[in-house]
Amino acid sequence: MHPRSVAFWGASNNPMRMGSVQLGELLAMGFEGPVYPIHPSEKVVMGLPAYSTVADTPGPVDLAILVLPTGVVPEILEECGQAGITRAIVVSAGFGEIGTEGKELQDRITRISRKYGISFIGPNCIGVINPRHKLNTTFYPYDASPGFIGMASQSGSFVTQMFVHLEKFGLGFSQGFSVGNEAVIDITDCIDYLGQCPETQVIGLYIEGIKRGGEFLRIAKEVSKTKPIVAYYIGGSDAGSRAGLSHTGALAGPDALYDGIFEQCGVIRAKSIEELFDFCYVLGSQPLPRGNRLAVLTNSGGPGAAAADAADRSGLDLADFSPPTIEQLKQLVPHTASISNPVDMTFARNHRDYLETLPRILLNDDQVDALFLYFLMPHKRVINSVISAMVDSSADVAKIGAKYLRGQAISAATLGHSYGKPLVGASFYTRSEPFIREVQDRGLPVLPSPERAVRALGALYRYACFRKAIEKEASL
Amino acid sequence: MHPRSVAFWGASNNPMRMGSVQLGELLAMGFEGPVYPIHPSEKVVMGLPAYSTVADTPGPVDLAILVLPTGVVPEILEECGQAGITRAIVVSAGFGEIGTEGKELQDRITRISRKYGISFIGPNCIGVINPRHKLNTTFYPYDASPGFIGMASQSGSFVTQMFVHLEKFGLGFSQGFSVGNEAVIDITDCIDYLGQCPETQVIGLYIEGIKRGGEFLRIAKEVSKTKPIVAYYIGGSDAGSRAGLSHTGALAGPDALYDGIFEQCGVIRAKSIEELFDFCYVLGSQPLPRGNRLAVLTNSGGPGAAAADAADRSGLDLADFSPPTIEQLKQLVPHTASISNPVDMTFARNHRDYLETLPRILLNDDQVDALFLYFLMPHKRVINSVISAMVDSSADVAKIGAKYLRGQAISAATLGHSYGKPLVGASFYTRSEPFIREVQDRGLPVLPSPERAVRALGALYRYACFRKAIEKEASL
Repeated sequence: MHPRSVAFWGASNNPMRMGSVQLGELLAMGFEGPVYPIHPSEKVVMGLPAYSTVADTPGPVDLAILVLPTGVVPEILEECGQAGITRAIVVSAGFGEIGTEGKELQDRITRISRKYGISFIGPNCIGVINPRHKLNTTFYPYDASPGFIGMASQSGSFVTQMFVHLEKFGLGFSQGFSVGNEAVIDITDCIDYLGQCPETQVIGLYIEGIKRGGEFLRIAKEVSKTKPIVAYYIGGSDAGSRAGLSHTGALAGPDALYDGIFEQCGVIRAKSIEELFDFCYVLGSQPLPRGNRLAVLTNSGGPGAAAADAADRSGLDLADFSPPTIEQLKQLVPHTASISNPVDMTFARNHRDYLETLPRILLNDDQVDALFLYFLMPHKRVINSVISAMVDSSADVAKIGAKYLRGQAISAATLGHSYGKPLVGASFYTRSEPFIREVQDRGLPVLPSPERAVRALGALYRYACFRKAIEKEASL
Repeated sequence: MHPRSVAFWGASNNPMRMGSVQLGELLAMGFEGPVYPIHPSEKVVMGLPAYSTVADTPGPVDLAILVLPTGVVPEILEECGQAGITRAIVVSAGFGEIGTEGKELQDRITRISRKYGISFIGPNCIGVINPRHKLNTTFYPYDASPGFIGMASQSGSFVTQMFVHLEKFGLGFSQGFSVGNEAVIDITDCIDYLGQCPETQVIGLYIEGIKRGGEFLRIAKEVSKTKPIVAYYIGGSDAGSRAGLSHTGALAGPDALYDGIFEQCGVIRAKSIEELFDFCYVLGSQPLPRGNRLAVLTNSGGPGAAAADAADRSGLDLADFSPPTIEQLKQLVPHTASISNPVDMTFARNHRDYLETLPRILLNDDQVDALFLYFLMPHKRVINSVISAMVDSSADVAKIGAKYLRGQAISAATLGHSYGKPLVGASFYTRSEPFIREVQDRGLPVLPSPERAVRALGALYRYACFRKAIEKEASL
């Protein structure tokens, strides 16, 4: 994941080739070490000097990337071994996932790798991403920032297409692995590695089937003690299991079996790819709640009620506020609104109370373990017309409006951590709205609906329960 | 919903007042009839001539909008009745939702409305939206296009905040109602009305509790015979039911009871606000499937497997293709890819096959009732570099790229309807990508993940089953 140099097989001056696209992305990412295209005839590939064999490269090679026709992979891997290369990514497909013949070929390259001590990812994968090291071996541009989510996936798309998905929230990968058929390095190895990676705050897994059940259990449990793991497993249904088999040759088991495995080792199960990253977002950024008592703060009844309903269905209780909290709320909440939980401020009130005073009151209550905050965004036009009425006509209303929103965002975003309690927001607006961007970039997760935000808090609570049980076990 | 003129109570020259914001939005939407602000002292409100009572307005009033303090609502409603106004929206809160005292006040305005034959929406609501009539009485700007989704909601936010949500897909409301406490007009009346609205292809409901169970059953069943209804019900959990009570005073019942009601009248239940509109998107735009056999077409294994898994969990079967289909697929799908269902083309192949030839083959198969299509978007940079290599250097590569994508989008979007079978796409890209925008604007639903797309197809199938049962019933 931190090579100083790369040798690349399968790129040419034909930009339609998969290999050319992948080499193009490696260069576009700005990889800083030397890159050596290996090509049987071309002298220059995509502007770089090319070499006919890896033995000819002018410097040592840390990582070999193979995007070659299936049949020549064994031979090239053999060459890599002879050249002393010990790390490789085999992108080529046509191995274990296509049946007996492919399986034999996969065994063959596995034997070659063992012989030379080559540790490789794949075959039938899309490679890896390590944005801080400017390493992107996939065919997709990584335009997101480096982030705190470590990913290991049996689908390449669920790494690469997530570049785009994570950007929607200002998130990014710390490091990401497309493990493919897992001939040598498997998803369990990745968990072990990401568990030790200091930039990784949470580990996300896409699983079609686990190969080494016992090892997975042991390592995932060890890592879960300090770092949350979230898994999206699709092999539990008949159709999902068959699709996985033809995709990566993974052997799946029934849902109940996997639920049992995940529960034993503290892995939190997600039910869709969106949920996987919703959970990673919250589990990787928020402190653990001490209990399951949620406060819901809203300026809009429907989203508040939807959050309450989702809480009930996600193992969370609505907190009963303590008497001092209720007294303080009475001072601030209009008489037409609700001070029971959900606290509904309704729309037409002081925004500073909503984004600062009220959250503080709720987070300060010992009866509250976590807070959900709904962002009903006042529209720019509304804010500007309010400001126009307050300031003299020469002032730059749009600028004051932007500054006002920014101040509000900062106060909202810095709240949760100062109380050591998790805080998650929701809004139907996206990052194209400056307020949402400001809040997200300051570390407060904002998800696209109340239900998704509360379900993620439910997942955080489930993980907190695992951590508590582990601590209890350890203290016995 | 189609007034020729509006009288407005509660707007002033103070832009911080809720009423001023709402009147501002009505004007911003470009409402074409006369608008008469009624104000006790001001002669001009927000640039319009104001009148001290509705009796003074120079022309007849079709619709009265009241954004007033709770206490004066009865008196003004009385004035409206005396002026012969028969349609009103009461935005003011502080009625049935706050307990006994409020309930009495609500009964009082209900009696007044009966006395004068005033049909009103509310109280404690946010009003209505009818974009084709340029009528927006809410406090939120409607920037989306007029659309095909009719909405009736016991939450105002789940109308107004959806303006933003629907825009993400290029969708919009045909007409939308925030029904509030339903003193006179309730959600069942709205279903009846939207059932007859020619611009409404599907009806979306947000429900905290149903008031007239028997009538709801009768009318919803009648409407469902020709137009799908989707409902998001949050009163089925303890917390959701309590939140609903303090929000709109709605009386909820357990999940199982409501599931039974919905099933009897063909209403499709959604489990979140996002799912409500995902379902409306697909049920309002796609032909009904004859059966539950789904074909999954992907150029990426993970999303294909996730779609297959979601199908299994949504009551859909993966279609077994007929022999001629398998023969045709063999010609087109690379040997490393899968021709069983999901059909996985993998990335590096001809895009025209993927977006045109293959969908045609699958839709043409009698064993296939519906098609899911995953859009793994080639990145602009990739497309441009491919085109650069093919055309002479003086050509405008970006322009050719855009045209290429546009052609692909058109062929993909026009497919489903020509076979009379539903077709739904998914992509992690949003409408900011021209390809996705083109496809969506041509009527092919593209949802943000494979699971959401397939669940919506599952909902469409459930609705098709209801329709089939109703037709059988009728033919006996």
